[in-house]
Amino acid sequence: MEAKLNELKQRLYEVADLNSAGSVLHWDMSTYMPPGGAPARGRALATLGRLSHEKFTAPEVGHLLDALRPYEESLPYDHDDAALIRVTRRDYEREVKVPADLVSRIGEHTAMLYNKWTEARPANDFAGLAADLEETRQLSIALAECFPGYTHIADPLIGFSDYGMTAETVRAVFAELRQQLVPIVRAINAQPEIDDSALHQHYPEGQQLGFGLDVIRDYGYDFNRGRQDKTHHPFMTRFAWGDCRITTRVKEDDLGDALFSTLHEAGHAMYEQGTAEAYDGTPLGGGTSAGIHESQSRTWENQVGRSRGFWQHYYPALQAVFPEQLGSVSEHAFYRAINKVKPSLIRTDADEVTYNLHVMIRFDLELQLLEGTLAVKDLPEAWNARYQSDLGVVAPDNRDGVLQDVHWYGGLIGGAFQGYTLGNLFAAQFFEAAQQAHPAIPAEIGQGKFGTLHGWLQDNIYQHGSKFTAAELVQRVTGGPLRVDPLIAYIKAKYGEIYAL
Amino acid sequence: MEAKLNELKQRLYEVADLNSAGSVLHWDMSTYMPPGGAPARGRALATLGRLSHEKFTAPEVGHLLDALRPYEESLPYDHDDAALIRVTRRDYEREVKVPADLVSRIGEHTAMLYNKWTEARPANDFAGLAADLEETRQLSIALAECFPGYTHIADPLIGFSDYGMTAETVRAVFAELRQQLVPIVRAINAQPEIDDSALHQHYPEGQQLGFGLDVIRDYGYDFNRGRQDKTHHPFMTRFAWGDCRITTRVKEDDLGDALFSTLHEAGHAMYEQGTAEAYDGTPLGGGTSAGIHESQSRTWENQVGRSRGFWQHYYPALQAVFPEQLGSVSEHAFYRAINKVKPSLIRTDADEVTYNLHVMIRFDLELQLLEGTLAVKDLPEAWNARYQSDLGVVAPDNRDGVLQDVHWYGGLIGGAFQGYTLGNLFAAQFFEAAQQAHPAIPAEIGQGKFGTLHGWLQDNIYQHGSKFTAAELVQRVTGGPLRVDPLIAYIKAKYGEIYAL
Repeated sequence: MEAKLNELKQRLYEVADLNSAGSVLHWDMSTYMPPGGAPARGRALATLGRLSHEKFTAPEVGHLLDALRPYEESLPYDHDDAALIRVTRRDYEREVKVPADLVSRIGEHTAMLYNKWTEARPANDFAGLAADLEETRQLSIALAECFPGYTHIADPLIGFSDYGMTAETVRAVFAELRQQLVPIVRAINAQPEIDDSALHQHYPEGQQLGFGLDVIRDYGYDFNRGRQDKTHHPFMTRFAWGDCRITTRVKEDDLGDALFSTLHEAGHAMYEQGTAEAYDGTPLGGGTSAGIHESQSRTWENQVGRSRGFWQHYYPALQAVFPEQLGSVSEHAFYRAINKVKPSLIRTDADEVTYNLHVMIRFDLELQLLEGTLAVKDLPEAWNARYQSDLGVVAPDNRDGVLQDVHWYGGLIGGAFQGYTLGNLFAAQFFEAAQQAHPAIPAEIGQGKFGTLHGWLQDNIYQHGSKFTAAELVQRVTGGPLRVDPLIAYIKAKYGEIYAL
Repeated sequence: MEAKLNELKQRLYEVADLNSAGSVLHWDMSTYMPPGGAPARGRALATLGRLSHEKFTAPEVGHLLDALRPYEESLPYDHDDAALIRVTRRDYEREVKVPADLVSRIGEHTAMLYNKWTEARPANDFAGLAADLEETRQLSIALAECFPGYTHIADPLIGFSDYGMTAETVRAVFAELRQQLVPIVRAINAQPEIDDSALHQHYPEGQQLGFGLDVIRDYGYDFNRGRQDKTHHPFMTRFAWGDCRITTRVKEDDLGDALFSTLHEAGHAMYEQGTAEAYDGTPLGGGTSAGIHESQSRTWENQVGRSRGFWQHYYPALQAVFPEQLGSVSEHAFYRAINKVKPSLIRTDADEVTYNLHVMIRFDLELQLLEGTLAVKDLPEAWNARYQSDLGVVAPDNRDGVLQDVHWYGGLIGGAFQGYTLGNLFAAQFFEAAQQAHPAIPAEIGQGKFGTLHGWLQDNIYQHGSKFTAAELVQRVTGGPLRVDPLIAYIKAKYGEIYAL
């Protein structure tokens, strides 16, 4: 059995090498690649994606998984070898259903469209992308159709990102959340608006980046195995256990943008850096789902980075970096400014309370696009109508409307967004559990100490990589399934205090 | 035939995609990768190298080349299709002799050692690398032994870089050159030393880089298809026709280092950018040999960038960038300073006259290491002895001695260095031909105009990519074989004037 397991691992390492190379090419495409590199880069990504797919879905992998089944069944469920065989089989049985040619076409198309989007968004040119987005829609449907038996066409795509979830289960969670959120948003909107003009002075890029790097070093992000670069759209990418990078973007008239995106992406990266090194190069090496991943980024961005205690510790340091801008702004005023709740246009800039309404809009539009009940050409109008009805705001142009997120232009339609809100729910539920285990965590955050929280996340979530599904993990860690009420309780407590509700 | 040619091209494109990915991974490893990424990167590079090798040496490629032979033979020698089939067959027949496992071992070992070297060089720790360098030596020999029938064990390795050359032919050229160079070096050394202290003031990095970028933009380096980053050791890398990048390093106490390395690497990159776009993704897409490549970098670094005319045009601009440092330094004094001839320790900093003596030392040591007449452990001593005898200088430590060049630590021993001096010879011979065709070139350089020279190089050298061998190219362009006397004539004219010989 050991020989077969080793043979399986060798095959998985080869696949991981190809995927890692693809990730480096993607990262470079988003950070440093000159425009002229785009066509060849798209082809190279398509080739790497196809080869990785071919290697992973080779019949020999299936034979090895069959041969290893008795061994797997002889082991406890949470034994590493059992998990490796189980998770590899799950991924194998999924990927084997997808033709290599489709993988290649998706890789090449999405790389091409990503590069177009980086120019089309500043130019406010949705029309110039519409035909390509329609192609993305058709490729997304073609991929979903590789998995007959779904209830909703989006189900396979949702399952890729958030294993075990479907359009129906996500809709049910979102409906419950929306029902509880909307009255809170209304109540906050009835209160006087917070003045956050202090955040919109001139903040030079270099100092902004320097402060963010200092904080995430304190968090425990390991720069020996990571780094930060600039991109159009912030992201985290894992090349290997030893190289988990983050990116950000800087707006010199908005102090919050780069800072909170840095804390956010560092949360993603600490999750990846914390996975067991022994899992590297296998399907266990890496976060288990989009929702769980997002819970880790949101924890460090919000539960920690937007907390009162955090700023009791860090605000003097931030004032020292920006004495002219913040010298006369009180910590209290600053804390309120970064937690201002106001329906707005940009998801990534949204406050914690209205954020999930942005996600729900995208999720619903994805389903409609895939169903064919919404045409790509009508997407901007539908987008604006939903922003009007759900948030009471309308973008002056598509740049800050339907073109704002990279997801549909750099990947598939379907499964791209639900993880953000699932992540907020998981984050609140996990943070509640962490505080129950270690009541001192909030006080430690107030001293700029993150070791207890980081250690708890490491032990309970990070180290497991993809060993457990999201549902298994939340059950193990919190003793029950995903719940909406921890997020609502967190929001009510925090914003009830801020807005004196 | 067209179907077979297309099938061959599709296979070559796939190989090119893998090679391109490998180049991106190498570039990233040299520019941005955090230290923790090294182990996985080495494995990924080894995998990409092995897969590329497997794909290129697949029996189907051989069958296609056989099937295409009649078509090739029906075409004129310089027809693009004929060249593609011919050059692919040459590369195929070479690569097919090398076992995939050896390719993989070389890829992984050299990536590992490169990362060690980046730390060992500043730490002056040759001993810490010696065992790995011995492994490199053995891998180099193993590779050479895949090609039985050689006269000297280094011949196959020399042939990889400079097709058609052998230890014997290189030695003959080097002997002739040395015989003519040594008296010139002696005569110059008898003259008063030029004061180049103006170059060794404090020159901030940002301005240095900015000036260099301005010049290479004027040269015609296309930033839409390229960019510059910083590395330990400057290099040029081609990912594709649309993405040919350069790197440099900056010493704030040495104005010449980054500037001339920038002009140098831009010369390499303009060659790659100038290859026919239709050749991209095939063995024709890219420079034809190390020597020809180096001739293009040296032309723009030396024949152009260290000429009097060039500085008549650019010196006022440089003074404007560095008014405090250069405001009171005359153009004449500056021109003499950047052309100061003095035997020194560092090859890449060496003047045009003594530079080739550095190369000859490395070439001879490579041959001895491969022959087994010199042991790796004795390399520093042999290195220092040759620097003492040939240049009259000895490095205070290995950092500026045997550890100075990346080549043996990031690649093979054998074939790594002869191209530098061959390049100087080709450069002088080509530049002579360009001036014969366009006598106005020197005057145009004096006006900061490079279009005539760039156009001549484009037409006569760049566009052909690897269509012609170095020997064929020099015959076509200059009407005869490689000669030593154009370089000697160039040196005598230029340095005879500077040193009043």
